[in-house]
Parts: sequence; C-alpha cells; structure tokens
Amino acid sequence: MIETDSVGIVKRQFYTFAEPPNEMPLESGEKLGPITLAYETYGMLNEQKSNAILIAHALSGDSHVAGYYSQQDKKPGWWDFMIGPGRAIDTNTYFVICTNALAGCQGSTGPSSINPATGNRYNLSFPVVTIGDMVQAQTHLIDHLGIKRLLSVIGGSMGGMQALEWAIEYPDRVVSCIPHATTTRLNAQGIAFHEVGRQAIYADPDWRNGNYLDEGVVPEKGLSVARMLAHITYLSEESMHQKFGRRLREKERYGYDFSLDFEVESYLRHQGASFVQRFDANTYLYITKAIDYFDLQQDYGSLESAFKNVMAKVLVFSFTSDWLFPTAQNKEIVQALQVHRKHVSFVEFDLPYGHDSFLIKNPKQEKLVADFLRCVYDEVK
Amino acid sequence: MIETDSVGIVKRQFYTFAEPPNEMPLESGEKLGPITLAYETYGMLNEQKSNAILIAHALSGDSHVAGYYSQQDKKPGWWDFMIGPGRAIDTNTYFVICTNALAGCQGSTGPSSINPATGNRYNLSFPVVTIGDMVQAQTHLIDHLGIKRLLSVIGGSMGGMQALEWAIEYPDRVVSCIPHATTTRLNAQGIAFHEVGRQAIYADPDWRNGNYLDEGVVPEKGLSVARMLAHITYLSEESMHQKFGRRLREKERYGYDFSLDFEVESYLRHQGASFVQRFDANTYLYITKAIDYFDLQQDYGSLESAFKNVMAKVLVFSFTSDWLFPTAQNKEIVQALQVHRKHVSFVEFDLPYGHDSFLIKNPKQEKLVADFLRCVYDEVK
Repeated sequence: MIETDSVGIVKRQFYTFAEPPNEMPLESGEKLGPITLAYETYGMLNEQKSNAILIAHALSGDSHVAGYYSQQDKKPGWWDFMIGPGRAIDTNTYFVICTNALAGCQGSTGPSSINPATGNRYNLSFPVVTIGDMVQAQTHLIDHLGIKRLLSVIGGSMGGMQALEWAIEYPDRVVSCIPHATTTRLNAQGIAFHEVGRQAIYADPDWRNGNYLDEGVVPEKGLSVARMLAHITYLSEESMHQKFGRRLREKERYGYDFSLDFEVESYLRHQGASFVQRFDANTYLYITKAIDYFDLQQDYGSLESAFKNVMAKVLVFSFTSDWLFPTAQNKEIVQALQVHRKHVSFVEFDLPYGHDSFLIKNPKQEKLVADFLRCVYDEVK
Repeated sequence: MIETDSVGIVKRQFYTFAEPPNEMPLESGEKLGPITLAYETYGMLNEQKSNAILIAHALSGDSHVAGYYSQQDKKPGWWDFMIGPGRAIDTNTYFVICTNALAGCQGSTGPSSINPATGNRYNLSFPVVTIGDMVQAQTHLIDHLGIKRLLSVIGGSMGGMQALEWAIEYPDRVVSCIPHATTTRLNAQGIAFHEVGRQAIYADPDWRNGNYLDEGVVPEKGLSVARMLAHITYLSEESMHQKFGRRLREKERYGYDFSLDFEVESYLRHQGASFVQRFDANTYLYITKAIDYFDLQQDYGSLESAFKNVMAKVLVFSFTSDWLFPTAQNKEIVQALQVHRKHVSFVEFDLPYGHDSFLIKNPKQEKLVADFLRCVYDEVK
C-alpha cells in the first residue's frame, strides 16, 4: 500500500545529448558523446520554471530518489521520506529532478555502456570523469527541460560535492544549495578506504581487467568486499554497537569455526551480497575515483577563491557521528562562504547513525529543509 | 651498525610441549598437541628468577621483539626501542621473553604446521584458539624456564588482551601487568573490520579453502587487501593527513586512469605487498578470530567479576588518536580494577599516530614503563 503522501508510481526517463561531433569536453581533456542521463521527475514545473529542485545522489545512489516503480515495489526511492506531496521537498510546490550520475550504472552512460564508435562496451576505455563532469552533464538535461535557474541543488556526500560544484561553476543558475554530510575535498583516509575497495575489485579474477561483462562473469566477491568495507565507514562505532553489539547469530556460544558467529558479520555479508545484485564493479571504480579527485582548494587555489562568485543561498548540515565527512569538514564550506559574506546557514544534528544519518528519517532534518526551501522560493516565485 | 644499547644479535628458540597423550585442552573443548612455541629471550634470568618480563605481541607481530638476527639485518625487532641495556625495559636488569602466539606463523604451531597425527598440514583443521589458549600455551614455556612469577606481562592491542588474561587467570604468577592500546572486548566495528579482512582472503581463489600451501599457491591478493584495510584502522585520520595528505605520487596532475595517483595509495599497496611476504593468510584468519572472541564481560559475567582476583599491579596506557581501541575502552579496565581497590595507574598520551602509537618511539612512554617496572622490581627483588 503506497502512502498518500508518496509521489506514487514513477518512471525512469532518459535524455541523450553530446552527439558527435558535439561531444562533451571532460576535465581530463578527453571528450565523451553521445551521453545519456537516466533521470526521474516528480511534481510539475511551473510556468515561470522557477520551482525546479535538483537532487544529486551519493556513491551508490541513482535517479530513483522517491516513489515506487510499481504497486508491488517493496521499497521506495532512496530519499523517499523527504520528497512527496506535503513532505519536506513538497511536490505540490516543487518540481523535483534526480539524475543517475555520469559513469553510473542505472541507465546513465558509464563504463558498461556500448561505445557507439566501436560497437563494443567501453569497460576501462571509458574516460575517468570528475564531479565537475557529472555536473556539466546535468546542465545539458536542465537546459533540455528549459530551466534557466534551479531553485535548489540538494545532495549529501558525493551529492553534496555536486551541489557545491553547481553553486561555484554555474552561480547564476542556482538560487540555493543544500550540501550536507560532505566535504570540499576527500582526505587521505577517505582516499585510502576507496583504494582498498578498488584493490578488492582488481583482486577478483572475475574482474578480467574490467572486461567481465564481455566475458559473461561478474566480480561479485571483490565488489562485495569493497561494499562491506565502505558500509562500515557509513555507520558509526556507536550505531554498530547499538544495532549489533557482540550479539551472536542464531547460536548460544561461539562456533569455533569460520562459518558465522556474530550478527554484524551476517549483516555485512548481506550488505555485500545485495549490493552486487544492483551495482556495477567498474562504475564503483569510476565513481570512487571521481570522489578522490574532488578538491576545491586545489582547483581554485583556495577555498575562499572557490566560493568567491557563489550567488546561491547555502544551507549546510552535518552529523555528530559522521566520521567519514565530519562536521569540521562541512564547516569549512561555511567559513569560506562567510569570508565573502555570503548567505549561509549551518546546522549540526546530534545523531548516532554515522555518515548515513542523512538517509535516515529525521523530523528535524525534514523541517530544516522545508523551511529553507520555502524561504528561498518565497523570494523568487 | 648496531646501536650500543641494543640487545644485539639474537636467536629464535623453540619449546615443544603437550605431547600426546598430554595434549593441551582448548577453550573450544578440543585438544591440541604437540605444541611448539617460538620465542626469544634477552638479558639474564637472575638467581631468584624474579626478573622475568613477558612481552605479548599484537595481531601481526612475532617473537622478534628486539635485536637483530645478523649484522646485515636492516630492521630490529618490533619494539626494539623499548628493550635493551639501559632502555625502558632494561636488559641489564630484566630477563625479557617474547613468544610467537599460538596459531602464529613465525615458528609457533599454527594452521600451516604439520599435524603429526596425520602427516599433513593442519590448514583449516587447526582448532580455533582463543586469547586464553595463547596464554595457557605461554604458561608451559614459563614453567619450562623455571619461572614461578613473572615480574610483568606487557602487551599492546592483542598483546594487551594477553596481559589481562594472565593477570586474571594466573593471579599468583603475575607481579605486574602493562596492557595498553587495548580493550576488554572487541566492539561490533572491530569485528566488522576483521570480517571484511577475512572475506577478502576467502574471496581469493588462491586461498583454496585454506589448502593453498599444499597446492603450491598463496592468496596474496586477498591477504594484501585485508592488510591494507587493517592498516588504515591502525593509523588516524590526522596522521594520514600529516603523512600523505592529498600529495600525488611522482606526478603533477591526476592520471585520469586507475594506475596510481596519490602517495597514500602507493603506501598502502606497499604495506599490502610487504605483509604477504612475511605473514600467513590462515594465521590471519585464526588470530582475528581469537581477538573477536575475546570478551571478559561475557566470560566472567561482568568486568568487575573478571578483575576480582587480580593481584598484579596494573599500568594501563592509551592514546588520544587511537580509534580502534580508544581511551574509553582502556579506561574500562582501570574502572573495573578500582572497584576492587586494586593498584592501577592510567596514562593517556596525546599523540596523533592512531592505534599504532604504542609502536612509535616516545620518550614519555619509555619513562613511564621504566619507572613502573623499577617500582615493582624494587618490591620483589
């Protein structure tokens, strides 16, 4: 039974652009085209086209941010509780867009796509793309939808990097921006965790140097290990303690073998096994690389320079227990914007769920976003 | 050139016990024998046999805690800066013993040993052992050396668990005990990291269900991934930032490929590659399992009960940046001992090097240990 304040049944759409010879230039210097972006929209674009909100997803997300694909669908989109008629991002008022990122594996052009120039899958010949390239691709879709300015760009984690990139690179196209649980550049520890995940994929003989789909196999074990590791970094020590502690899995005493002892082991194995059903190993490599490369300080000389031309009103929020992108890293955004007396607000939520806190239903987060959007919309509508 | 305050050239020794039919009973209910422990000693046992100090190593350590195997040896033992004539653990005064843990891969009986009953390698038929079993094995060596009471049992991380086990299970045989950077039980996050490491090993087709040595292969890739992951947990975000930051490896700009971009990636790959040269994958499984199983609260009903009969004077130290076994977990030892008005001291060092801080030369740590040992030795000699 679909809730009455859900966006209901939704459908994935596709937009293709950058057809040769008009390929899209990438930060690497390479060109890519044609490019297809998979996307979903909810609500109605108003006549002035002033009510469009773009949601950007995190590493393992996709364009299915809200609603259901069918009545039988068991789970809604990944941020469903935030989006719908009467919800924080109110689809009675706003027109919501979410794209699957460039290099993604849920319908957008990525390493598993066929390169029309060769008739073969790209695999590792797909160019390494950046957060900036992902955002540039989104501008093509926004143009296609006839939208000059986005009322807001909203994203957590890698989605937050995209939100920042929009505000910085396209200042006159972004009225407001809500980056959260994010950073202006990945630190050494974050790069290290990504690299171990990539090494786990490379180590799987079924990865076949990236050509696994052509050879009819899938590096499930390697991708699963990468996901299990990453998943630990999305939780917190406290939330894992609360959720699992040292509870044994369907046994009274240790097994004294290597089958399965603890609930947390069972949970992780399940996370790994379900991830490989929905995610592509090469996309995992490309997306982690894009995040590794994100570095506003390097790209603009300093954070102050990066944010100099931002016109958007910015709301940043973070979580006390997020040790992947801790509050201090989110505050760097706030401080750099304040140097230029930009309109910026900041909230830290005291929640125990780690980095994934932003994905967990939280009335305070809902109210914060709802109120912020209402304010910025009141000014432009 | 070997330093004058080094213990100098040392030699690994072996002691075998628990010959059938007198096998050693294990916590699992199984029996194991014969058992060989590899060990090293430095300094001289005094006539009263009152100056013996046992050092217990961490997950990836071994009995080579100090000195060199030859003049050409490039690196000394793993805690060399702490041990030697005039050093904190002064071999002019004390007789120092260090064993390779049961299930280890540096000369002690473990999964890669030959089971004399079958003539074949144990591999996964080796019984799962516990920290308690490791300590029980050490008691046989201590008996063999004619030592009734150890002046001190000293260990960090898994070594700290052994030190606690000694003080709790053999109260009249331990004059003092210095557990550090340790815990009374592994938390869910710790179990989770171990499980991902094990899954990385299982995922390597060269693991061959544990029979790799018989089949002439080594699961290098899986063990390497496990080590890279573990290594991140031994450092801190701050120390990785200081040591590597986002510095590129021998390049001016991103490579836009999957070869190697960042220094931290190169460092991790090196850590993984060198570890597989010296460590055994099955031992990695067994030792992580032993650590997972360590739980004083579960074993004794409560921490207070666990420490009730301790007679040793205890010195606990921890490190501000250790997020694997944080100060709060070390303090639980102190608090439980204080309930019984036991003699316990506690120091937290403000150092940025993460869990591995205890392995890094630090004059304050050296002085703390030296002074504590002098006090306890003054009382018994």
